[in-house]
Amino acid sequence: MYFGIAVFPQKSVQDIINSYRKRYDPHYSLIPPHITLKEKFDLPEEKVDEAAEKLEAIAKQCKAFTIKFHKVSHFHPTSNTIYLAIENSEPLVELHNKIEDVFEPVDSPYDYIPHLTIGQKMSEDELHDVYGSLRMRNFELETKIDRFHLLYQLENGVWNIYQSFLLRRSSN
Amino acid sequence: MYFGIAVFPQKSVQDIINSYRKRYDPHYSLIPPHITLKEKFDLPEEKVDEAAEKLEAIAKQCKAFTIKFHKVSHFHPTSNTIYLAIENSEPLVELHNKIEDVFEPVDSPYDYIPHLTIGQKMSEDELHDVYGSLRMRNFELETKIDRFHLLYQLENGVWNIYQSFLLRRSSN
Repeated sequence: MYFGIAVFPQKSVQDIINSYRKRYDPHYSLIPPHITLKEKFDLPEEKVDEAAEKLEAIAKQCKAFTIKFHKVSHFHPTSNTIYLAIENSEPLVELHNKIEDVFEPVDSPYDYIPHLTIGQKMSEDELHDVYGSLRMRNFELETKIDRFHLLYQLENGVWNIYQSFLLRRSSN
Repeated sequence: MYFGIAVFPQKSVQDIINSYRKRYDPHYSLIPPHITLKEKFDLPEEKVDEAAEKLEAIAKQCKAFTIKFHKVSHFHPTSNTIYLAIENSEPLVELHNKIEDVFEPVDSPYDYIPHLTIGQKMSEDELHDVYGSLRMRNFELETKIDRFHLLYQLENGVWNIYQSFLLRRSSN
């Protein structure tokens, strides 16, 4: 079974980003706007509850935090993806690293850059057009992150929820 | 903000039901196959964590259980919905009742009948055609229910996860 781990920004941010994703992201109908913490991975169904316990332990170690999306950026030429960049991404990188330690090591040629995808799999021309127009706009968005979610993928490609994990309240 | 509460059957059941929903359910792309525990309701965002705590308390009181989908049925003439009926629906009714007690009383003219929708908003002719053909098939499906989920609706109609609540393990 395929799983993935992600956080969702608050609803108001999702609604804004969806207005762009609808046009520019072919995954628009498969999953709401999210920041990936762990990319799609294969895990036998009978191992998921053990993994969930480890994720629960991680959540209890980490405090809730707030992130700011401060500019539009892209991954070209690595991939034709446009995204909202995160000003203070350290707590997301920390969560990502803790989560990676739970599972089989993944050999990735790329550093983990937390991001909120606006568009992907675009042609080069479209990427440059859309980036050129979006980078002029002011995206001063902020969102509280106080939970993350383990998701699984259905046969039709849609991601459904397996379990949510609450971070410690910041006031604790 | 609009919220709803639902359980999802295991992935294999969702994949089977989706093969029908794709044709017969206009909500196919808004939410995966589910059994509604509480219909869409309005709740101010600042009240959701208080509600989540109460739902957590309910989850801790209830044991995980297994349900069987044993036949195709419909709600005609009340609504043009075709669904998989549940043989042993008592634990779902119990969950529903406990959840209803948490929120403002809802005045519904209908009894709660837990069901897994296959198709809805069909024309009368289509309903009869599809029901006639599906009721001949053998749907002996079973699924473990060991959690339920609080969902919220985005502006585009898609339901996203707010939080999951784990029932007590049956072995406890």
